[in-house]
Amino acid sequence: MPPDPPRSGAQRRADALAQLTAPHQDVWVATASPDADAPHLVPLSLAWVDEQVVIALEATSVTARNIAATGRARLAVGPTRDVVVIDAHLAQSLPAADAGEVGQAYVRQAEWDPRQSDGYLFLVLAPRRIQAWREANEIVGRTIMRDGAWLG
Amino acid sequence: MPPDPPRSGAQRRADALAQLTAPHQDVWVATASPDADAPHLVPLSLAWVDEQVVIALEATSVTARNIAATGRARLAVGPTRDVVVIDAHLAQSLPAADAGEVGQAYVRQAEWDPRQSDGYLFLVLAPRRIQAWREANEIVGRTIMRDGAWLG
Repeated sequence: MPPDPPRSGAQRRADALAQLTAPHQDVWVATASPDADAPHLVPLSLAWVDEQVVIALEATSVTARNIAATGRARLAVGPTRDVVVIDAHLAQSLPAADAGEVGQAYVRQAEWDPRQSDGYLFLVLAPRRIQAWREANEIVGRTIMRDGAWLG
Repeated sequence: MPPDPPRSGAQRRADALAQLTAPHQDVWVATASPDADAPHLVPLSLAWVDEQVVIALEATSVTARNIAATGRARLAVGPTRDVVVIDAHLAQSLPAADAGEVGQAYVRQAEWDPRQSDGYLFLVLAPRRIQAWREANEIVGRTIMRDGAWLG
């Protein structure tokens, strides 16, 4: 069976936003350690708040320490044949008990409330580049945000 | 609905091997650049050959260059609520056209043949640690291989 024809940029953006705003959405979070060049990768819950990604995690976790040190993460949402990949920079780090509207928005979307969990942080990650593709015929045109700005 | 009870170590190992040997299986491959601490993450096809992970990719890709430089990758198979996470070291790098039995085994499982693709490599990655978990109640006991040896 031939694959579907490649989607337009506008369609990919609409589909990506539908994935990023879905309830109970998970995200793969890849980070690098500053010292040993060691890659790390974990699945976490995600919220999409004011065009930024919000994750919640223990401040002592490898992922939190890597992001604190390097300021960067690469995120993937969706199954491997319908991916949204986001290169993001750390914008804000908020103690869980004091995260205000970011915390409220996270709890609404993630359907999980870490605000009373000792030692948890909310990290707000600002997308710099977003790519979206399904099969090989969508590799061309996969970049839908560059330098923090939506294309097209 | 309460989650299923946590699986035994033996069950997790059997389930992980079923995922790793499934036809047409994809894997998330996280790597780190040696210079800029930048995390990278892409989905690729996977084969499981003689207790090692085999991936095929262009020698010039970010992932191939990061693995060549650091010797390491962290891999994730499965959806985010049924994951197998593998910390692996580079064991072998084989030109696609000259990959022998490794290449044959890859083509059989991945159902894709990169052996005639210019500039492709097969990388054989040796697992050092494997973790397998579904929901939060399986975080305890998630390590099923340590220092390259299956536990239990």
